[in-house]
Amino acid sequence: MNTSNIFSIALKVRDYECDMQGIVNNAVYMNYFEHARHEFLIQQGVNFKQLIDKDVFLIAVKSEIEFKKPLQAQTSFIVTCEFKQKSKVRVVFEQQILNINNEIMTIGRMESAAINGAGKVLRLNAIFDLS
Amino acid sequence: MNTSNIFSIALKVRDYECDMQGIVNNAVYMNYFEHARHEFLIQQGVNFKQLIDKDVFLIAVKSEIEFKKPLQAQTSFIVTCEFKQKSKVRVVFEQQILNINNEIMTIGRMESAAINGAGKVLRLNAIFDLS
Amino acid sequence: MNTSNIFSIALKVRDYECDMQGIVNNAVYMNYFEHARHEFLIQQGVNFKQLIDKDVFLIAVKSEIEFKKPLQAQTSFIVTCEFKQKSKVRVVFEQQILNINNEIMTIGRMESAAINGAGKVLRLNAIFDLS
Amino acid sequence: MNTSNIFSIALKVRDYECDMQGIVNNAVYMNYFEHARHEFLIQQGVNFKQLIDKDVFLIAVKSEIEFKKPLQAQTSFIVTCEFKQKSKVRVVFEQQILNINNEIMTIGRMESAAINGAGKVLRLNAIFDLS
Repeated sequence: MNTSNIFSIALKVRDYECDMQGIVNNAVYMNYFEHARHEFLIQQGVNFKQLIDKDVFLIAVKSEIEFKKPLQAQTSFIVTCEFKQKSKVRVVFEQQILNINNEIMTIGRMESAAINGAGKVLRLNAIFDLS
Repeated sequence: MNTSNIFSIALKVRDYECDMQGIVNNAVYMNYFEHARHEFLIQQGVNFKQLIDKDVFLIAVKSEIEFKKPLQAQTSFIVTCEFKQKSKVRVVFEQQILNINNEIMTIGRMESAAINGAGKVLRLNAIFDLS
Repeated sequence: MNTSNIFSIALKVRDYECDMQGIVNNAVYMNYFEHARHEFLIQQGVNFKQLIDKDVFLIAVKSEIEFKKPLQAQTSFIVTCEFKQKSKVRVVFEQQILNINNEIMTIGRMESAAINGAGKVLRLNAIFDLS
Repeated sequence: MNTSNIFSIALKVRDYECDMQGIVNNAVYMNYFEHARHEFLIQQGVNFKQLIDKDVFLIAVKSEIEFKKPLQAQTSFIVTCEFKQKSKVRVVFEQQILNINNEIMTIGRMESAAINGAGKVLRLNAIFDLS
């Protein structure tokens, strides 16, 4: 898996994602990060829905988010996604949200695992090309 | 502020909160935790919206979530909220989601600060009764 | 199916459901109405998720919403749900949101059908007790 | 206001927008339609958030949605937005969601008005260039 160039997607804040404070609601950052991860996975040939159909569930184990600067309405931004294998059964996604001036707005770190419908933890080399 | 008894609210998973995996989407846990914090604050006489009207914005600085067991559709659960002052300008909310068998499903930790609309960090003793 | 007493659930606005206008975002009313419909169905012995597992998908065909008065933050309200069979393959849910003074805040009407995973329209008497 | 060419935006379904049925949840169509309306308004020089700051609230009065075909995960689509003045205090947004084969997936119609914070209905010619 080539991680020499950092994967990223370009998004723009939608007005409904902002809460009473007039800024993006905290939970929505989880949506942004997830969307970037799934787009990254698609690029790697891993389709979240097709995995479900094969009884493979990518699940969150631990998330950490640092909120540096809030995203405002109508703001364009970039979400990055870097992938690191942590063990045979655990991967880590290191992520950032950057504004158009390349300022870091948000830092995310998501640790994930794969299980089947019965709850059995799965080896990740069956899902990802970890070479 | 009396924290000898842990504050909690009782909720139930709504079907639209579940994603393609048939379980509650990760971002929704942020919603649950936020709602419990705001209900806790209401109990303490602190109203999130009224603060905004007074140019006081409670903002997230850092969040950590451990996903122990996923919440399923139609599941009843409890969200707790414990409040700890970390410094003159920083508070921490320790939170848990428990199922009806008292199993810990999710652990959350949110560090928060208060700023005004101009971005100035505010002393928290003007907002909370920290005695 | 006894519809002499109107089914209803009691909810309270969660702060994250409010947008920059400080009131509940339009899309969230669809969430409230859906949740009330699914709770109504549960009461009738019809579980949305279990239907999916049986390859039965209740789908929206047409929705109409009249927004009379906006719901504010921290407001308690009632969502009603009345069920009417329209044809062998179509049902209608008539719904209202009422505040604690019994004022109608929102009126909803959702026409629904059932299909299987292959897209075939299903007879509703196999799903609902329409007697 | 030039409406000879229909305004549209291109979007793609995000996995978190899909529910247990594996398709986009009904409420999310309201999000898509709102986002397209707000982007349309931006193009017309009307900024939703700036209006709020000027004590002008664009509010939904009535929405109608026809769900023709469900949007699947990872699907690209177009949301259109046409604007029609209905009266001095009422506008209508006619909207469609089309897939990449130009099939109509969803039809939306939103009737809107403008009020100030005190609830007074405002003339729309002060907000939109209705010439």
